[in-house]
Amino acid sequence: MHDPKLWDKDSVESQNIAVVDMCQYMNTHRGVYDVVKSIADFGVGIVKNVPATVEHTQEVVQQIAHVQHTMFGGMWEFSDQLVHNDTAYTHQALGAHNDNTYFTEAAGLQVFHCLQHDGEGGETLLVDGFRAAYELQQTHPASFQRLSTIPIEAEYLEAGKHYFSMDSVLKLHPVTKKLQQIRFNLYDRAPMRTQPPDQIPQLYEDIHLLAAKVKDSQGEWWLKLHPGTVLFVDNWRVLHGRASYTGLRKMTGCYIGRSDYISKATVLGII
Amino acid sequence: MHDPKLWDKDSVESQNIAVVDMCQYMNTHRGVYDVVKSIADFGVGIVKNVPATVEHTQEVVQQIAHVQHTMFGGMWEFSDQLVHNDTAYTHQALGAHNDNTYFTEAAGLQVFHCLQHDGEGGETLLVDGFRAAYELQQTHPASFQRLSTIPIEAEYLEAGKHYFSMDSVLKLHPVTKKLQQIRFNLYDRAPMRTQPPDQIPQLYEDIHLLAAKVKDSQGEWWLKLHPGTVLFVDNWRVLHGRASYTGLRKMTGCYIGRSDYISKATVLGII
Repeated sequence: MHDPKLWDKDSVESQNIAVVDMCQYMNTHRGVYDVVKSIADFGVGIVKNVPATVEHTQEVVQQIAHVQHTMFGGMWEFSDQLVHNDTAYTHQALGAHNDNTYFTEAAGLQVFHCLQHDGEGGETLLVDGFRAAYELQQTHPASFQRLSTIPIEAEYLEAGKHYFSMDSVLKLHPVTKKLQQIRFNLYDRAPMRTQPPDQIPQLYEDIHLLAAKVKDSQGEWWLKLHPGTVLFVDNWRVLHGRASYTGLRKMTGCYIGRSDYISKATVLGII
Repeated sequence: MHDPKLWDKDSVESQNIAVVDMCQYMNTHRGVYDVVKSIADFGVGIVKNVPATVEHTQEVVQQIAHVQHTMFGGMWEFSDQLVHNDTAYTHQALGAHNDNTYFTEAAGLQVFHCLQHDGEGGETLLVDGFRAAYELQQTHPASFQRLSTIPIEAEYLEAGKHYFSMDSVLKLHPVTKKLQQIRFNLYDRAPMRTQPPDQIPQLYEDIHLLAAKVKDSQGEWWLKLHPGTVLFVDNWRVLHGRASYTGLRKMTGCYIGRSDYISKATVLGII
């Protein structure tokens, strides 16, 4: 099994996260290999010099896999129009989180491309969720154990939709017992209806301890996305957020299914 | 939690599986409700009098959710052209199976519509996988226990693709411990590389015992799909197969994601 290379604020810049020119990425085996290898190692890969359009972003995505279609569509575009009941569709700051904790299977990768920003702020925040979880395992092994076994509920509500999932915050590989997924999202949490009431305070304390690891500024990688830079994030490992912003900011992007990403990384001999 | 109503060959015809006219299904709350309720109860629902085109089939699908896109595309069409390395793309008989055991999450629902068949055979086989699994639990509880806990491997290979998943054949709900999913597919099995060698014969025996329940003719519901009939199958519960056939047979259909089906059934107040 492929072992992730953990990073924090200090180490991330020296850890050879791939930043590959679109021309090389689209036309050479090595270009795609380097980006997928970077995603497998660090949960992050970047393609640069991409024309700032939805269509070119989609071309970049399709070198890895087809676009996953969800209730948000295939390729999405958003600014601060609240077209879904989702905090992403605002200009507010967002704490680091994983997407789709309310799906029975969260998207494997997330793709971001800032097409335009006439204003200030909006920096992207990335946090290595596996580092945060393994730090919790070191300092509070019982909390890690509970968070990797006790299923809790997440949900998403808007008119005509009610997504719901119940799973542990940390998911371990069934054979190796190594960390396979982190599902951390304080925005999409639902009431804890299935836990014995006397155990709920402990579970909140466990989540609080994990949240402290996630929110530790030592783990925060802040970067400013400019038009031309397509960012791939492993949504099973890396949490993302953003600073609040002013002005008009247009983003595009999409999800890639977990199976499809794994297939590509397997064919390339990376995992 | 919604309890499935188990069925076999004798009981299925009397169990009120929904067969809803397209006009009612497209235009009334009750029409969609009856089909989704039937899928939740029996793992099967039918819409009839649908024009035999891909486009009309898609309209029927979209009353429940958007089309799930996979490596096979969105709405698919096939006859016996082997465009993928998949037994579905032949004229051979297929034993009852679940699709996508090699995905990290199998599709929630599968949709079938026979657009044309000039020939003989090709009857559709459906088997209630939950009935088969619960019968195994009655006769061989230790086998049920192993099949619901020991992860085994499934894979799919074609040029440029290598899908792979490791999970138990039977999956229980994390809280209620009731059966949540069956992943039964003898075509997509991979070598058992993660089990201790001395336990593999026992696991093969367990799978053999479950296969006997699945293949018991008492559990087989055979039906002939004609143009106009759109069949929804819960791919987490019901296994499907078909008889061999002669002549030209054109099928269309698609997958619906598990989360999207659950959202619809939840909004309708069914689960």
